[in-house]
Amino acid sequence: MSVNVLALCGSLRAASLNAMLLRACARLAQPGIGITIFDGMGRLPLFNPDLDEHPPEPVGELRTAVEGSRALLIASPEYAHGVSGTIKNALDWLVSFPPFVGLPVAVLNASPRARHAREALIETLATMSATVVTEACIAVPLLGAGLDEERILQTPRLADDLRRALSHLAAASGRTGVPPPQFPVR
Amino acid sequence: MSVNVLALCGSLRAASLNAMLLRACARLAQPGIGITIFDGMGRLPLFNPDLDEHPPEPVGELRTAVEGSRALLIASPEYAHGVSGTIKNALDWLVSFPPFVGLPVAVLNASPRARHAREALIETLATMSATVVTEACIAVPLLGAGLDEERILQTPRLADDLRRALSHLAAASGRTGVPPPQFPVR
Repeated sequence: MSVNVLALCGSLRAASLNAMLLRACARLAQPGIGITIFDGMGRLPLFNPDLDEHPPEPVGELRTAVEGSRALLIASPEYAHGVSGTIKNALDWLVSFPPFVGLPVAVLNASPRARHAREALIETLATMSATVVTEACIAVPLLGAGLDEERILQTPRLADDLRRALSHLAAASGRTGVPPPQFPVR
Repeated sequence: MSVNVLALCGSLRAASLNAMLLRACARLAQPGIGITIFDGMGRLPLFNPDLDEHPPEPVGELRTAVEGSRALLIASPEYAHGVSGTIKNALDWLVSFPPFVGLPVAVLNASPRARHAREALIETLATMSATVVTEACIAVPLLGAGLDEERILQTPRLADDLRRALSHLAAASGRTGVPPPQFPVR
């Protein structure tokens, strides 16, 4: 049975390195791992706690996608030493969503110099009771490297690192011992 | 001449404590300080770098409001140990906007237990070359206090603290020696 992994990209830029990285992952994933890139990030409304229980349609699509997945793969840029509003907004809609609890998550970092956003994202994911899979959270030095999707696939070191990260993520999805729900106070 | 202060609220909840705090500030501000709460936060699209130069209308409204202001006042909640997507999204649209450089900013914290979001917000504002006015960044213990807008105005300790913070913010808007533009690499 294939492990369904949902991929979220925190940039809406057409030529986003993070989106490219996720597309490369989807192509190089080993048999038994299926990666679906969520295509509705840009359609999500800004989070409104008043709508959390009966959210607008794109939020329903996101939640359905999360519910149907065994793991999450995130690639997101750093803007002004912070997470992108886009990725945080998507996560804000998932804070009180029970299927998120215990979900194995990997955070890929396409710009290894950027550490603020990576650390903030991992803090938030841990606070949301996701299972951050440390071995699957790797830096992929794409910024300034001039690589495109094909070149990532053809660079053995990168492709191997990414496959290894995906293996760790998939393995974590089979783990038991999921922590009990623990929602942060709003 | 009155000092125009633009206020941004990072929560879209109708009963938001942060929105209440900003409304209270607008009412208690001393003569010579005029606070305008930006009412378009929820209409801002998610940040897209491809649209940064010719942004959608609500972004233009935000930028015009920033350009017409001498200082910025921010009140924003913490969600899952992170900044709200809503406030970060607004700031993402202002990263490359020159009038933001050197703009004095105060961050109010309505939930003093929440320190992650406050610290991340201040790091981002400093990276955007705003002038974070430390003396104006105060904690206002509203969470769980059961205060409404009227009660804030009628509680001398709170009202005095807020007036003092606004004085510091307004004073900073008269400072010279604005640092040169320094945009983070995208």
